[in-house]
Amino acid sequence: MPNTAPLSGTRDFLALEVLRRNYVISVIEDVYQSYGFEPLQTPALERLDTLLGKYGDEGDQLIFRVLKRGEELDRALAAPDGEALKERLSDAGLRYDLTVPLARVMAEHRNDLPRIYKRYQIQPVYRAERPARGRFREFYQCDVDIVGSTSPVADAEVIGAVAHVLQRLGFRGSEQFLIRLNHRGVLNGLMEVVGIAPVAAGPVLVAIDKLDKIGLDGVRQELIARGLADETAARLLEILGQGLEAGSTPETALDWLDGLLAASAVGRESVANLRAIVPCLANGPAAEHLRIDPFIVRGLSYYTGAIFEIAFPGLSGSGGGGGRYDNLVGMFSGQGIPACGFSLGLERLLLIMEERGMFPERLSGQPQALVTLFDQTTIGPSIALATRLREAGLHVDLYPEPGGYGRQFKYAGQRGIRYALLLSPREIDAGVVAIKDLAGGEQVDVPAGEVAAWLAERL
Amino acid sequence: MPNTAPLSGTRDFLALEVLRRNYVISVIEDVYQSYGFEPLQTPALERLDTLLGKYGDEGDQLIFRVLKRGEELDRALAAPDGEALKERLSDAGLRYDLTVPLARVMAEHRNDLPRIYKRYQIQPVYRAERPARGRFREFYQCDVDIVGSTSPVADAEVIGAVAHVLQRLGFRGSEQFLIRLNHRGVLNGLMEVVGIAPVAAGPVLVAIDKLDKIGLDGVRQELIARGLADETAARLLEILGQGLEAGSTPETALDWLDGLLAASAVGRESVANLRAIVPCLANGPAAEHLRIDPFIVRGLSYYTGAIFEIAFPGLSGSGGGGGRYDNLVGMFSGQGIPACGFSLGLERLLLIMEERGMFPERLSGQPQALVTLFDQTTIGPSIALATRLREAGLHVDLYPEPGGYGRQFKYAGQRGIRYALLLSPREIDAGVVAIKDLAGGEQVDVPAGEVAAWLAERL
Repeated sequence: MPNTAPLSGTRDFLALEVLRRNYVISVIEDVYQSYGFEPLQTPALERLDTLLGKYGDEGDQLIFRVLKRGEELDRALAAPDGEALKERLSDAGLRYDLTVPLARVMAEHRNDLPRIYKRYQIQPVYRAERPARGRFREFYQCDVDIVGSTSPVADAEVIGAVAHVLQRLGFRGSEQFLIRLNHRGVLNGLMEVVGIAPVAAGPVLVAIDKLDKIGLDGVRQELIARGLADETAARLLEILGQGLEAGSTPETALDWLDGLLAASAVGRESVANLRAIVPCLANGPAAEHLRIDPFIVRGLSYYTGAIFEIAFPGLSGSGGGGGRYDNLVGMFSGQGIPACGFSLGLERLLLIMEERGMFPERLSGQPQALVTLFDQTTIGPSIALATRLREAGLHVDLYPEPGGYGRQFKYAGQRGIRYALLLSPREIDAGVVAIKDLAGGEQVDVPAGEVAAWLAERL
Repeated sequence: MPNTAPLSGTRDFLALEVLRRNYVISVIEDVYQSYGFEPLQTPALERLDTLLGKYGDEGDQLIFRVLKRGEELDRALAAPDGEALKERLSDAGLRYDLTVPLARVMAEHRNDLPRIYKRYQIQPVYRAERPARGRFREFYQCDVDIVGSTSPVADAEVIGAVAHVLQRLGFRGSEQFLIRLNHRGVLNGLMEVVGIAPVAAGPVLVAIDKLDKIGLDGVRQELIARGLADETAARLLEILGQGLEAGSTPETALDWLDGLLAASAVGRESVANLRAIVPCLANGPAAEHLRIDPFIVRGLSYYTGAIFEIAFPGLSGSGGGGGRYDNLVGMFSGQGIPACGFSLGLERLLLIMEERGMFPERLSGQPQALVTLFDQTTIGPSIALATRLREAGLHVDLYPEPGGYGRQFKYAGQRGIRYALLLSPREIDAGVVAIKDLAGGEQVDVPAGEVAAWLAERL
């Protein structure tokens, strides 16, 4: 037999999974729209030269490349010469993220877009990763970005919208999610005050980023392993220790940073920027979830300003993150275009919501009743009943084959349909529909004209 | 400058286009759900052997193949040997349609699906066609199928659901769309009664299928060019002429077919099947649009029973089509699994709706008001106002940069936002918000607590 499993790292989504995904996506879309963001969709296929060189060497290796076709493929194969051949075999690749397409769109459609472009984009992306638990080769990204403004209000809008999404999905209070806020310049200032040169900062920041997972001792070991001078490491660890104590409210954390970074110009500016963002979030949905965390780093090297991430207390890893990246969106147009944005981790969210039973019991789109078929003579009346109920806005399945009720009830059970509507000659003659509650087994006759209202009341 | 146009044959969709597409897709989904269909989503990437050999030689050439990666690619390239090398370069391809994935899902998830599986699937598919006007390399298919039943009620449900979709989108009466119904067995019976052997029928059917476009004379020329015997061609053309006259109602058309095909067993059976389907559509959404058209063929060779297609009078080409295909869905499981379905042509629908101005003036998801920023001191009150309105369910943009109103009004205009909300110290002191109607230019002060209600009344 042929292998019919979905390609490794990809998934089939049957009805319940699609409806759950659609529920979460519709909440995200609705909130983003309520914040004035507009949708964008870009193709799954991009020119290969649009994609290459944007995600580092490792990223380039993870791009799914599409084989050239017909004569073009023949030409590419005609003169094989090692490495260069591989590069010639493909002219297009699959979307790897939603940020490079945004940058391309900014260059291509500049004149059709408002001066400040607030867009969201929810589409699958493709990465040729080795599949693992929770790591997929096709997965959705939910990006929201404000392009064209350096204002701290823009950073705050993006953060507020994400907090609003999580609240609407049922995540409540700081026990259920935190928004950790930091600034690239705070990290740069920190390197400055402990005396680590920018060229040497990379590995140190990688170690600091793990503080949450491996603790102070773990970071100490990493720093030593990476060859940081003992004195510098000790000073840094002392600061990390102080920082862990300082951050109970944004105000106390910022006061502490002011003192720490007083000697660094970039540090002072960055704290001032955070001091402009934080009050924009007061009284909004993000307020109770906001923490200044001067030690989150966010891996992507393209961030230039504020950086933020979602944390679910008790769970490792983040639920998404983002920040300000003022030098990226202009990559195709050769202009500096400021931007900040947030990417929510849909797959992670869905997993947590499933584990915690956070989905509504009745998801929009599920069938609500089954019209049964008694025999050949009752097909017409049964179809007419289904048509009336559908016109009344109900979701009504119609069993397509006349015959025993047992098989039809079983089918309703498989589909999670509670009410079976029976219309045999007895009911037709009496002008009623017999409604059987498959959960309890009771059956009542309801006048034919009142079935829609009867069901609507109970669904 | 780099080329920033989307890859040839693919498209970027900016806000208005996404909202229009979402509007049509949401109507399709809503109607399909109201008919008891459940959603399915499958990956864009499929194993290459799942795709190959399912769409004919021409189809195989149009599949986008994904290049192998890393060592696997190196191994494939290590022993180049002409044609076979090409086959070894790829192990996966992009989804070409939604029917083969359905067949794969039926084999893989049989035990998780109800005995009769009513599914819809709305996803993009990929074809390496030469791009042309209206022909894309990435486009959406909207499929709806009932798998597991041979009942004519199933055919009727699929047809009814599609008619209901078109009516909900604003297509009214038989002037705006027709559903043409035919049967593979009617065509086979027709070949039988005019004396054309099954092996010779292919080219004749291709000619007949063009009747609508090229008329009787055109078909005559095609038949002669294809070498059909003069006598046979004359007999066939006589029948086509009669058929064009016979079809004013399903009943007269079926009566005519009964007489015509009386000598063909398969013909008689097929007319009987149509006679079972037609009454299931009476009084439903398809009734006034239904035409028996004994000369539509539908290209796909996999149909085995009823076939149908949407026609828009006055426009050539179809708006989608479908039929019964009882031997296809079992291809991966080795079982015979009956099925019938319909695929709506989303891109065609969108084009016609745009030409005819059939989209709602206000699409769900558009921003409704812009909160302006007067200066640094009013950022807090403006954010608070935006937050309140968003919590009240309104779609509210917030301009992120304080400064002159002129630039902010211009931005609102670019985004199609009618109401600008002004909150300078004057309004704050007075406890009002000044609302400027950018369409007419009037400006009124509205008490701060009544802004949401004021806007809701006017949107």
